[in-house]
Amino acid sequence: MSATSRGTRGTRGLHLNAFLQFVGHHEAAWRVGRAGPHAGWDVAHYRHLARVAERGRMDAVFFGDSPAAYGSDHSELAHRPLARLDPTVLLSDLGASTSNIGLIATASTTYTEPYELARRLASLDHVTGGRSGWNIVTTSSAHAARNFGLDGHPDHATRYERAAEFLEVALALWGSWPVDAVLADRVRGRFADADRIRAIDHVGARFRVAGPLNVPRPPQGHPVLVQAGSSADGIAFAGRYAEAVFTARLNAEGAEAFADRLRAEVAAAGRDPRGVLILPGLVPVLGGTEAEARAAKRRLDEAVVPGSILPAVSRLLGIPLTEADLDRTLLPGDLPDGAGERGSRSALVQELLGGARFTVGELVVRYAAGRAHLEVTGTPEQVADVIEDWYLRGAADGFNIMPPVFPEGLEDFVDHVIPILRRRGLFRTDYEGTTLRDHYGLPVPEPHDTSRKAPR
Amino acid sequence: MSATSRGTRGTRGLHLNAFLQFVGHHEAAWRVGRAGPHAGWDVAHYRHLARVAERGRMDAVFFGDSPAAYGSDHSELAHRPLARLDPTVLLSDLGASTSNIGLIATASTTYTEPYELARRLASLDHVTGGRSGWNIVTTSSAHAARNFGLDGHPDHATRYERAAEFLEVALALWGSWPVDAVLADRVRGRFADADRIRAIDHVGARFRVAGPLNVPRPPQGHPVLVQAGSSADGIAFAGRYAEAVFTARLNAEGAEAFADRLRAEVAAAGRDPRGVLILPGLVPVLGGTEAEARAAKRRLDEAVVPGSILPAVSRLLGIPLTEADLDRTLLPGDLPDGAGERGSRSALVQELLGGARFTVGELVVRYAAGRAHLEVTGTPEQVADVIEDWYLRGAADGFNIMPPVFPEGLEDFVDHVIPILRRRGLFRTDYEGTTLRDHYGLPVPEPHDTSRKAPR
Repeated sequence: MSATSRGTRGTRGLHLNAFLQFVGHHEAAWRVGRAGPHAGWDVAHYRHLARVAERGRMDAVFFGDSPAAYGSDHSELAHRPLARLDPTVLLSDLGASTSNIGLIATASTTYTEPYELARRLASLDHVTGGRSGWNIVTTSSAHAARNFGLDGHPDHATRYERAAEFLEVALALWGSWPVDAVLADRVRGRFADADRIRAIDHVGARFRVAGPLNVPRPPQGHPVLVQAGSSADGIAFAGRYAEAVFTARLNAEGAEAFADRLRAEVAAAGRDPRGVLILPGLVPVLGGTEAEARAAKRRLDEAVVPGSILPAVSRLLGIPLTEADLDRTLLPGDLPDGAGERGSRSALVQELLGGARFTVGELVVRYAAGRAHLEVTGTPEQVADVIEDWYLRGAADGFNIMPPVFPEGLEDFVDHVIPILRRRGLFRTDYEGTTLRDHYGLPVPEPHDTSRKAPR
Repeated sequence: MSATSRGTRGTRGLHLNAFLQFVGHHEAAWRVGRAGPHAGWDVAHYRHLARVAERGRMDAVFFGDSPAAYGSDHSELAHRPLARLDPTVLLSDLGASTSNIGLIATASTTYTEPYELARRLASLDHVTGGRSGWNIVTTSSAHAARNFGLDGHPDHATRYERAAEFLEVALALWGSWPVDAVLADRVRGRFADADRIRAIDHVGARFRVAGPLNVPRPPQGHPVLVQAGSSADGIAFAGRYAEAVFTARLNAEGAEAFADRLRAEVAAAGRDPRGVLILPGLVPVLGGTEAEARAAKRRLDEAVVPGSILPAVSRLLGIPLTEADLDRTLLPGDLPDGAGERGSRSALVQELLGGARFTVGELVVRYAAGRAHLEVTGTPEQVADVIEDWYLRGAADGFNIMPPVFPEGLEDFVDHVIPILRRRGLFRTDYEGTTLRDHYGLPVPEPHDTSRKAPR
């Protein structure tokens, strides 16, 4: 795809989510920020953030999730505020506390049942008047398996096979109440045309689900389907199902290549590539001047407790690391071959450090600051420049904004970056609709035809 | 237990829940009431009801639930508004839409996983500032099994065995973050005392769950535990775990006998019988005069579509019934021996019809009006008289109020019955606390000692 054809996407308008996580995306946020260590499970904190994001007319708030207290190591809790409220419950409150902004919940297909989750998400879409999205993940935390009676975390391919069948069931359930099945004929006493509310009678390798759902068709048809895995399996899955893709990209060239690859996969699945939004993560570290921004970043980086990040970096690299390794210089040969969750591990790490030689301690701080997402430290103009560049060259349809510290990082983005994007004609000045599909410019889908089988 | 010792409970104050269901507890409500057929999945309808109940300073709103669109027969959808939003999602919104009232969600231990549900309920308790309750059910709808890949609905005893182990896991998870485990030491960078956030390492017949939960200890310690089964298994379960019991009782003598039996079971489990509230269902059909109330009831009863209720009555009686049976007079010998979900089926049916001979059609209308709960048709004074009588004789600590039609039935109860109860000194004029435990007069529990095994 040429840069020009990608560039035409600019006419559809930029999309911006506020990715809400604990008290900030920087691991040291809880030590440094205004909100403090307990805010991660305080609904007032999240209501404030959702209202700030809505004040900025952002498309959605977005919550990650994992059904486990830590990734692999109990000691992670010592220095990291890893408490997570269930996103579907939290987002229902945030829906009541706002009026237009979209509400995207992450939930795992590996550790839920499709009837239960499809129903819960349909309920969220009804309760919020069509503002829900579902970020579909297969869960990378190996510890989660131990909370659900499994001997081990299913491997990557197995998780994606389950995810695909899960989606077929969920889509069928969301389509099990045709829009006009409710007759509401009070005089004749006919509530519904029962024959049109169809059992789905799904029988597959992993699920047997009769249906129909006990919730009428949601206002959006179904929640906006978001996907966040960038492995080969993840991209194939996104090609079939995703309407928006969240990804970690460290530079515009890599993002362009990813976008081309994803859109080709969407087309190969028989879908319109323009029907899928690509939203990389972006960590804006803002200051009134570049020097102020760098000072803010330094304060955060210096507050990282390196040992607390080692388990996550060990998982990323696929090698065990201890505090004794912090001063060690990592060489390419130290990394195992083979692809991780994110594709090639060594390529990622090279990209993360800009090709320089680096110590484990430097990698830990870099990871703690943005988890391998694009990080821009600078003035609001500089952050807006990067957003505009990626957007106009077709590397992104928008961004999942990941402020290092809440609430101040989101307030600064809304108050100082978004006005610049508006002046440049890139971002909306008000909502033009009431649903997340309205904000994203996505159509309400037709009820799912379960006989459809996309090419693989 | 003597009537006098039961009577002393009156000093603790009467408790009143608003049991919200669709557009009313009378099956014909959707044909007759102000809200209309679509209100059952309209959040604005439920927000209004929750605010009316809070205006009346009622203890809680209460939602039933079942993970299936119908009990056994697809044709039930034709005449009954059987759409149900997920209660945990809906109640989070209602928590944001109110400030004090308790929020009780029904959820099944048969068709959920303990880590997922314990976490979701803990999240609801955090998000609502300690206003959550969990009505623990094992699900009676046989069709639910088919939505979760099972060949058949597990039998009653098996479901209660799973429920007991489920509770042990949930209680241990809710206790896995000690109150003071979060250190929040920003200077030294210590978020938590990780060694005090304990794995639970539950290994049982049905579940293996490592823990800890990824949500800190909820404001109420855990949600108020409510239980609604009145079979022998159900009462034994309530004796061990319940803090409030919802039950269907048709007369005060039967309610007294039930209360005595339940309290004996609570004592046998080593718990204080005063720590468990007994809340029978009550369907108030109100009118300015008794004649007006009777006319309102007649309008509702005449709008019942008998055929639509037959599957539910067939399940209740344990015999198949068709429209051809509607004029048939049922005799005691027609009912199968053996206990159903609610204890002896024939005793229940005799009680339901006051010992008279009756046709299937009459039973259908009686069931459609209140599902074998106490029904009082009359003036506000007459309804208040029954509440006072049951309460003072110790047959009930309060009631789950089941208006036949929403919203008007709840508005009438709050505006006309509650003021009478207040004048009689039976019911609060304002909330004295902010949590459901405050309203119910229940203590915040100590973290669960998983080594405790109650006598059976």
